[in-house]
Amino acid sequence: MYAPSGVKTGPGVAVPETMKAWVLGDPDQLMRVEKPTPVPGRAEVLVRIDAVAICATDLDVISSGPPAIIQGGLPFNKNFTPGHEYMGTVAALGPGVDEFAVGDRVTVEIHAGCGQCKRCRMGMYTSCLNYAKNYGDVNKGHRANGFTTDGGFASYAINNINTLIKIGDEMSDEEATLVVTAGTSMYGLTELGGLIAGEAVVVCGPGPIGLLGVAVAKSLGAYPVILTGTRDNRLQVGLELGADHVVNVRNQDPIDAVMAITGGKGVDYVLECSGAQGAIDVAGKMLNRGGKICLAAFPHEPDLIDVAYLVRNNIYVYGIRGEGKSATHRAHAFMAAKRFDATKIHTHTFDMDDLPTALRYARERVEDAIKVVVKNPR
Amino acid sequence: MYAPSGVKTGPGVAVPETMKAWVLGDPDQLMRVEKPTPVPGRAEVLVRIDAVAICATDLDVISSGPPAIIQGGLPFNKNFTPGHEYMGTVAALGPGVDEFAVGDRVTVEIHAGCGQCKRCRMGMYTSCLNYAKNYGDVNKGHRANGFTTDGGFASYAINNINTLIKIGDEMSDEEATLVVTAGTSMYGLTELGGLIAGEAVVVCGPGPIGLLGVAVAKSLGAYPVILTGTRDNRLQVGLELGADHVVNVRNQDPIDAVMAITGGKGVDYVLECSGAQGAIDVAGKMLNRGGKICLAAFPHEPDLIDVAYLVRNNIYVYGIRGEGKSATHRAHAFMAAKRFDATKIHTHTFDMDDLPTALRYARERVEDAIKVVVKNPR
Amino acid sequence: MYAPSGVKTGPGVAVPETMKAWVLGDPDQLMRVEKPTPVPGRAEVLVRIDAVAICATDLDVISSGPPAIIQGGLPFNKNFTPGHEYMGTVAALGPGVDEFAVGDRVTVEIHAGCGQCKRCRMGMYTSCLNYAKNYGDVNKGHRANGFTTDGGFASYAINNINTLIKIGDEMSDEEATLVVTAGTSMYGLTELGGLIAGEAVVVCGPGPIGLLGVAVAKSLGAYPVILTGTRDNRLQVGLELGADHVVNVRNQDPIDAVMAITGGKGVDYVLECSGAQGAIDVAGKMLNRGGKICLAAFPHEPDLIDVAYLVRNNIYVYGIRGEGKSATHRAHAFMAAKRFDATKIHTHTFDMDDLPTALRYARERVEDAIKVVVKNPR
Amino acid sequence: MYAPSGVKTGPGVAVPETMKAWVLGDPDQLMRVEKPTPVPGRAEVLVRIDAVAICATDLDVISSGPPAIIQGGLPFNKNFTPGHEYMGTVAALGPGVDEFAVGDRVTVEIHAGCGQCKRCRMGMYTSCLNYAKNYGDVNKGHRANGFTTDGGFASYAINNINTLIKIGDEMSDEEATLVVTAGTSMYGLTELGGLIAGEAVVVCGPGPIGLLGVAVAKSLGAYPVILTGTRDNRLQVGLELGADHVVNVRNQDPIDAVMAITGGKGVDYVLECSGAQGAIDVAGKMLNRGGKICLAAFPHEPDLIDVAYLVRNNIYVYGIRGEGKSATHRAHAFMAAKRFDATKIHTHTFDMDDLPTALRYARERVEDAIKVVVKNPR
Repeated sequence: MYAPSGVKTGPGVAVPETMKAWVLGDPDQLMRVEKPTPVPGRAEVLVRIDAVAICATDLDVISSGPPAIIQGGLPFNKNFTPGHEYMGTVAALGPGVDEFAVGDRVTVEIHAGCGQCKRCRMGMYTSCLNYAKNYGDVNKGHRANGFTTDGGFASYAINNINTLIKIGDEMSDEEATLVVTAGTSMYGLTELGGLIAGEAVVVCGPGPIGLLGVAVAKSLGAYPVILTGTRDNRLQVGLELGADHVVNVRNQDPIDAVMAITGGKGVDYVLECSGAQGAIDVAGKMLNRGGKICLAAFPHEPDLIDVAYLVRNNIYVYGIRGEGKSATHRAHAFMAAKRFDATKIHTHTFDMDDLPTALRYARERVEDAIKVVVKNPR
Repeated sequence: MYAPSGVKTGPGVAVPETMKAWVLGDPDQLMRVEKPTPVPGRAEVLVRIDAVAICATDLDVISSGPPAIIQGGLPFNKNFTPGHEYMGTVAALGPGVDEFAVGDRVTVEIHAGCGQCKRCRMGMYTSCLNYAKNYGDVNKGHRANGFTTDGGFASYAINNINTLIKIGDEMSDEEATLVVTAGTSMYGLTELGGLIAGEAVVVCGPGPIGLLGVAVAKSLGAYPVILTGTRDNRLQVGLELGADHVVNVRNQDPIDAVMAITGGKGVDYVLECSGAQGAIDVAGKMLNRGGKICLAAFPHEPDLIDVAYLVRNNIYVYGIRGEGKSATHRAHAFMAAKRFDATKIHTHTFDMDDLPTALRYARERVEDAIKVVVKNPR
Repeated sequence: MYAPSGVKTGPGVAVPETMKAWVLGDPDQLMRVEKPTPVPGRAEVLVRIDAVAICATDLDVISSGPPAIIQGGLPFNKNFTPGHEYMGTVAALGPGVDEFAVGDRVTVEIHAGCGQCKRCRMGMYTSCLNYAKNYGDVNKGHRANGFTTDGGFASYAINNINTLIKIGDEMSDEEATLVVTAGTSMYGLTELGGLIAGEAVVVCGPGPIGLLGVAVAKSLGAYPVILTGTRDNRLQVGLELGADHVVNVRNQDPIDAVMAITGGKGVDYVLECSGAQGAIDVAGKMLNRGGKICLAAFPHEPDLIDVAYLVRNNIYVYGIRGEGKSATHRAHAFMAAKRFDATKIHTHTFDMDDLPTALRYARERVEDAIKVVVKNPR
Repeated sequence: MYAPSGVKTGPGVAVPETMKAWVLGDPDQLMRVEKPTPVPGRAEVLVRIDAVAICATDLDVISSGPPAIIQGGLPFNKNFTPGHEYMGTVAALGPGVDEFAVGDRVTVEIHAGCGQCKRCRMGMYTSCLNYAKNYGDVNKGHRANGFTTDGGFASYAINNINTLIKIGDEMSDEEATLVVTAGTSMYGLTELGGLIAGEAVVVCGPGPIGLLGVAVAKSLGAYPVILTGTRDNRLQVGLELGADHVVNVRNQDPIDAVMAITGGKGVDYVLECSGAQGAIDVAGKMLNRGGKICLAAFPHEPDLIDVAYLVRNNIYVYGIRGEGKSATHRAHAFMAAKRFDATKIHTHTFDMDDLPTALRYARERVEDAIKVVVKNPR
């Protein structure tokens, strides 16, 4: 029986002493193991995982290890559980936690900053200077579940209360897994200006962040919102999520298209989610003077950029890591108000036992998969 | 006798009906002509030019025409007077102007936005959407003296009152010409964060903007301020302007040096004034997570950039055009308070008649020239 | 035939040489006169007035003169035309205007800053330091139509292009007159934080700004939005505009009610639109620590305030004058997207000839009048 | 011998198992006791107190208990040690702390937010929603040493590492105790605008925060800085700290004086540190339109305020609690750079044994006392 000292469990959610978890072996090797259910500390809770969405970054973590977010990168992390876009039910409370109750349905954001570095103290917890310092002698309390601390491809996970958002019954498990993706789009749009009602936005790249970027931009009142991409079926989803215009760059020069739509004025903001070569130069030329670009994709190769163009036109470029400044809460508020239907990007569901199949669907885009979700049976 | 209708002249400053001005012929051709003294309109004054500093951009304008700040660029501008870093004496007031008096000593900033576009209405007058629309049928009132409207290599020039700063007698003519350069540095530091006391700053490139960037950063309380460059004599000037450390990149890897100075933490901000290939990647690796880069130089070639590094580390990059958000006033305030001695970058003075020689000194860095000033005899 | 030099008229909109206008005589005396149709200057257009909503401030202007916005106030303005919440059709273009075309349907905001003072240069045109300097020798170009320059209770009015918003055919004349009111609410919410999705807001006072404040807060995703007031019929309109909770302060202590709704946490923002005695103290006690209050009402008497409470709780208080920082454009974007139905506060329509009756309905709240609109017949 | 488990001590700083501390009995009763030396936890250090400055709030805490910063206030805190403006030497490190080393000289700021509430996550740790929840079952980790947790009138105190600033040998103990006061002034000026070079500031009230407000404003480049007060000796200290003008309100109407100094324009910012009746109305009338007021004093009585004046003139009012947003670090940077000499407000030093005498000097302003410091003998 799970009853760690100082931890509060509740009547509705029985917790076993051990749990199932997918853990990394060598690169690309993922094994299901039975291991002790983890124990929440101060300001932490135990979350019973109900559903997890698969993100492209999961595929990278599984094949290459955690992202090199610190100087010199991190070692490939054996015995680590990936999965960062999850939701579930509060199953136990760490010492002194009264912000949540056992039984609360919650979704998560990824990053719990250390709370004691300069960036955390500025509210920039996704840029925590103690990123990944979360074990052994250098434990500064940072968590990035699924990146540097165990994530959601398991029965249970530990979450700092800072990373939880209470959700209502009207939101399905699948929809709830998408809150953090929408939160990343929201963070990008926050950094670009935030108050974008009536302003013109291009979203480049109809992946999950791009598609929900369209939805969030429309929720914030942006007009027009133009989505560019290479696949008509994805662009169609963009239209369903509110895009005012879509441009298939295989058929049309995207700069010309944007200039035609905006009467030659260009747009105010570009949310670049494609990671394509040349994307920043294209984005720059879609903008009017003083416009801004948010970089929400991780290009695999260096890109050749006309820097002088950015300087001459007073263009600012924001590289964003994830879902900062409580943007996930703002995204959740719009989703709870049914301002957009994020489930339009959810295409497939598998049982947690079938995670390898689910990952294959996500990796190979089987049956035009966009967001693939795995669920623990209850 | 100069007495245009509606214009107010004063007893102390006699204005002739015609004046001398250097004007562009073909590229690299600069001729001295006699032409009518221009007439200030509403919200404008006539400035008698007393001194002008030469900027690298002047050399570009003279050889290649105005910078391509608008889609498609501008035609090479025959009969146009360059020179944008000037100071002088108010010689006549346009209709209704009471903000200045004839006889006031003034220095200038370059950009007077149209006041009626979206960017101007946001206070971003250097990103005016009507940039260069200042003549003929499309006159929206934008002025960028020395870029798109006649500048300072003449006896007189017209300035919108928005572009003037009153200066005291304790500031020499030469020092006053440097206010706008310091203002550009200040604008960059403003966009990077503004409140930088106790924060760590690297300035890359000891040109005029970089050197005054060191001075302005120190005025704002930054610590440490590290200057990187290739020439020891320039780095020496940086030390005199307050740099806490200088790094000659010919002798030392600048990233290693910055990490050594900061105990491995990296800096919070980089003011990139070198325009060198690879400069943005180097800047990124000098920063701690969540740091920021300001681009204040115009590189001549596209640069290959590791974009994913910027994204992973939540780094923001600000391309700045000139001296926005009234930063020139803030720079002037520090100079008037003698917080730093900008004249340390002033190396040579010539008579306005000798402009070609002055330009050669600036272009070829004769006798280690940094800032070369030309003066009208009084 | 109206054909002033330099002004461009169009085929669709014939303009007579004289027009009808209501003008002020002595206090509370309003007369209909025939006067020359005014002539737009640079950056100005002539608007044919189609509809005007009546604001409480109009009643003040008519009985007491323009608000004392400058040190010492303004003289009571004989022969002046009030009315500031209007919409219409572009009837003629001043010299060089190409941003609009004759025939465009437009709505307006009130303030065109001078564009040449410090506040205008910061983007704070509603706080223009040359407020009311718009005539005679001190003409700095400031306009506040209906306050310091002729307004909308006439057939035509002059507007700076900065004050115009193009509207679509799907927006009725009546709805269009409400854009500026929604813009004032939006400005208040912008200054309070702007990014308020998921944050808790109280709106005090269900007048037009308060009611549209509810609608704008909901559009921005705020939750919960609580409206307090004294009249159930007004609170009912608040519910129709999206309020999550309403509190009739005659029946319930508003602080207790807010604490009950928020589980004792208090709210993040209060938009104070009641102007009631004690309103700021009540607002402060509804807030959590670090919360903010926007003052959007003009109380008639000084208020006794527990200042130490504000200091101890790090509360910020924002007095806002009108509709700054282009908030009207953002409000319009939400209205054009049908995010809320502003016409729920429109209760009565009269012919412009019946302005005195319309004013009486507004002043005395005849038949529960909220917004009373007068229209010019076409 | 002090050697708690998990705590790291060092060779240079021997720590006894018990220490001396002044503790509160009944109101106004302060007793010296011997008690166990406290033990730092995670992210905490033990500081050996070297010097403590006395603040007016200490006198309030001693006579009336902690400030009522939470709904309903706090009970009068028996057995509690006041004193919040202290500096000292790191004597022991809590588990995992490597940000500081035993022997480091440090000064402190007061507030360590909980790190897990909404305000802390925004960087507003002085507005922590878990203020005072630092003991027993509701321990959320908040600390406000000297307010809600034991402070500096003792031999040792516990500090969260977030509240420490490393200081150099060139800064005396006495000067170091003044950093947090300067930090409060800096926070106020930060909230008012931050970038105030060349802008006009009035500081009302030449207490410690006001006097260092003058110094900080000058460091930031403000011009002119005008100090108002009632005592010429205090105003004289203001001049020594850089005030451009001082106004004794016993001799001169302060609004008239400010208007005369500014040529009728008024100032941009008022830092109100007097707490006097009517102070906000006076501040409002010193400002130009769009100006801002920071409230840094706790008036003892409610104040009658012309709210409509604030609204008409778009004036914002910022109540600040203490030294937020890392302003103390910025203040320290200016002090370390010798930009101003804070010790000009230090008038008296006593031994910690003589705390009652020191408090009397501070309370009764014996010998014109401004800042009275008590020191532990070494």
